[in-house]
Amino acid sequence: MNEKDDSSGYKGEALEAIRKAGAEIGDLIRITKDGEVYEGILIPRSEYGDKKHIVIKMKTGYNIGVRITSDARVEKIGKGSKPAFIVPSQPEQDETLPRVTIISTGGTIASRVDYRTGGVRPALSASDLYSVVPELADIARIDAQILLSLFSENIETKHWTQIARAVAEEVAKGVKGGVVIAHGTDTMGYTAAALSFALQNLPVPVVLVGSQRSADRPSSDAASNLVGAVTLAAKAPFAEVVLAMHETSSDTGIAVHRGTKVRKCHTSRRDTFKSVNASPIARVQNQKINMLTDDFKRRDHAKKLVLKPRFDDKVALIKFHPSMSPEVIDWYVEKGYKGLILEGTGLGHIARYCSETISNAVSHKVIVAIASQCVWGRVNMNVYDSGRDLQALGVLPLDDMLAETALVKLMWIFGQTKDPEEAKRLLKTDIAGELSPRTLPDKIDNE
Amino acid sequence: MNEKDDSSGYKGEALEAIRKAGAEIGDLIRITKDGEVYEGILIPRSEYGDKKHIVIKMKTGYNIGVRITSDARVEKIGKGSKPAFIVPSQPEQDETLPRVTIISTGGTIASRVDYRTGGVRPALSASDLYSVVPELADIARIDAQILLSLFSENIETKHWTQIARAVAEEVAKGVKGGVVIAHGTDTMGYTAAALSFALQNLPVPVVLVGSQRSADRPSSDAASNLVGAVTLAAKAPFAEVVLAMHETSSDTGIAVHRGTKVRKCHTSRRDTFKSVNASPIARVQNQKINMLTDDFKRRDHAKKLVLKPRFDDKVALIKFHPSMSPEVIDWYVEKGYKGLILEGTGLGHIARYCSETISNAVSHKVIVAIASQCVWGRVNMNVYDSGRDLQALGVLPLDDMLAETALVKLMWIFGQTKDPEEAKRLLKTDIAGELSPRTLPDKIDNE
Repeated sequence: MNEKDDSSGYKGEALEAIRKAGAEIGDLIRITKDGEVYEGILIPRSEYGDKKHIVIKMKTGYNIGVRITSDARVEKIGKGSKPAFIVPSQPEQDETLPRVTIISTGGTIASRVDYRTGGVRPALSASDLYSVVPELADIARIDAQILLSLFSENIETKHWTQIARAVAEEVAKGVKGGVVIAHGTDTMGYTAAALSFALQNLPVPVVLVGSQRSADRPSSDAASNLVGAVTLAAKAPFAEVVLAMHETSSDTGIAVHRGTKVRKCHTSRRDTFKSVNASPIARVQNQKINMLTDDFKRRDHAKKLVLKPRFDDKVALIKFHPSMSPEVIDWYVEKGYKGLILEGTGLGHIARYCSETISNAVSHKVIVAIASQCVWGRVNMNVYDSGRDLQALGVLPLDDMLAETALVKLMWIFGQTKDPEEAKRLLKTDIAGELSPRTLPDKIDNE
Repeated sequence: MNEKDDSSGYKGEALEAIRKAGAEIGDLIRITKDGEVYEGILIPRSEYGDKKHIVIKMKTGYNIGVRITSDARVEKIGKGSKPAFIVPSQPEQDETLPRVTIISTGGTIASRVDYRTGGVRPALSASDLYSVVPELADIARIDAQILLSLFSENIETKHWTQIARAVAEEVAKGVKGGVVIAHGTDTMGYTAAALSFALQNLPVPVVLVGSQRSADRPSSDAASNLVGAVTLAAKAPFAEVVLAMHETSSDTGIAVHRGTKVRKCHTSRRDTFKSVNASPIARVQNQKINMLTDDFKRRDHAKKLVLKPRFDDKVALIKFHPSMSPEVIDWYVEKGYKGLILEGTGLGHIARYCSETISNAVSHKVIVAIASQCVWGRVNMNVYDSGRDLQALGVLPLDDMLAETALVKLMWIFGQTKDPEEAKRLLKTDIAGELSPRTLPDKIDNE
């Protein structure tokens, strides 16, 4: 290796020690330092690496970075085959494959751990991607761009607008494959809903993808999710906003969820995303797409995208709980909020003592609508007096819409209109699969 | 039948028409009125029935009330056997059976539809119960009392106190069976958590039970849930606060959930309650109890109940969402709130732009703690900078505690102490099974 054209990424003291040991990427090495012995396969560093650390993949599958001080000894103890994920340079692109654009917004899938700081940095150039996931070269020609570098809890409505516009630009360029959006999983469900409303009449699929474990962890889902997402963008028959992630906790397949029906349901599992009050629309297994429904919008390059990227922040989600202060509703009204999504209990109930403030909100033309904190099932405000009374106050039941999707939808609606009557009409109209008719299979809507 | 000692419950015009037809409870009758024909089994009326309606159970299993006007014709068209659920009077009580107290707080399980108004009224005298669920007489001697008549969305912290005290009174009487609490399902999970903290060192089980379908619906779960709950109160080896409801959407069994680990997860399904980050502790099938764990507190009549029934309302649950106004946190601080449970995203994250207001809350000695809106999984605020930064501000991670349970717990804690440091210590200490150690089976905590 020499410093100039060194694809290993090592520099300075670290590179010197590796050279002295005669080791190459993929070799088994031993580092002895301060009486501790570290053995593992030498792996390449990212462009962000410092000059002082050597990174090895240990038998456990975990990577560690060892700081090379003057007393550290580095030995090569075995000749390794190059690990599969190391591709020295970007592969030749197969011109017959569709182009797929990957837009990165940040999150675990788009990041690499910096071994010096323990921090995580975005890394999503096309060559980064090919080096981490070489299979991509067999599926599509990838264009990669870093739009944002945010952990997704920091994603706001203005970012949804940015992402929607970035997708529209790719579509305008006539990208034949679809667009993949790499996103942190925390609020990926909200962004999926936002794009579902903002990007209408899509000619190609828009696939959100994330990972629950970073690429340097042995159980990482980053590569398999990305392969699934790019496969969908390149080949899927549908043209909708979807979210693609592990279907189960094993590695068998990638589930494809409609953007308005999906929710993060576990803090750490790889199959954290679930379609709620709906089934996944497709499954990807070994790069084969299996559609699970006929009810989808079809890919059609003749379609002209309708971009509606504006959102209004003056909408809030309030989860009701016993002894909740009703005054918090007044506060939102005073702050000029235009819409409130209440997460009621059960079939869509809120304590009677909140009636007055709710009625006050409605009289100020604030749209008040109720989804259920149960998460699953359909709001039905005709069964009990409490629900009927709330409707009489002017509160709208949100049927089987997810509370999170309802929030995003109302934010989007007020990006389109200022008229509360039109807003109500839109809220109760199915726009992107967020509202389903009552007749669903028993297992989903067993009433 | 004669009006005076009429166990059918009919009065006035309705009773007269039934007599004229020579019909008795259980007979198949036909009512012709306004050109419409209604056929079904004559069923008894509740004590709240008016004089004008006859109630029949139709072939579909649904009951309807037909108003008897002067032009209505009632005929007996078949001699019926008495439906199984009709027991003319309270059965002899078997003195060898344990006494079980059923405390009703309202909700679907404790109610009957008034066919005149369509409204629902509480009805839970012991004889009502025996007439609806005669099996109860074989399990326990029932004492029934109506403590509250509330749909559970109207249950507040003061009601938790009332219920806890009512249970303590029964325990003080030396009830050998346990106590069953009939409760609306909407907030039954919150109340189960509340009682778990308020009733410590229980000598007998306390079993919350509800139903998703009222007793007059063919698919009602009221009777089977009640039989399961009374079985547990009478015979279970444990002495904890639990919630007992259908385990699956079929009728196979009743799952027993620990009071701090249970959540309503479907608006209408009978198996709506799920243990979250835990497994049910027992199952009841055909009045047989099958314990699913050894880790429970045992029934022991020598134990002396520790009653801690006070709660403080100045605690709120805030569900974070993209573009949430951080000022709402300031509002709660200004209102003198002592604790805020934030439902963060993923592993326990909140947007960075909220840091300032969170820091302000902490500096005002408000306890700020984070659970996850994912519902399932464990908060881990050491994985990403965002989590570490929040902890540095003084925010507490709530591990695998449900957000709803955390709210209730902090309300309870401030009923016990005013000292924020003691409150923090209690919040992070397992009191009633609400916090589990990290090592859980893979299927629950797959990290």
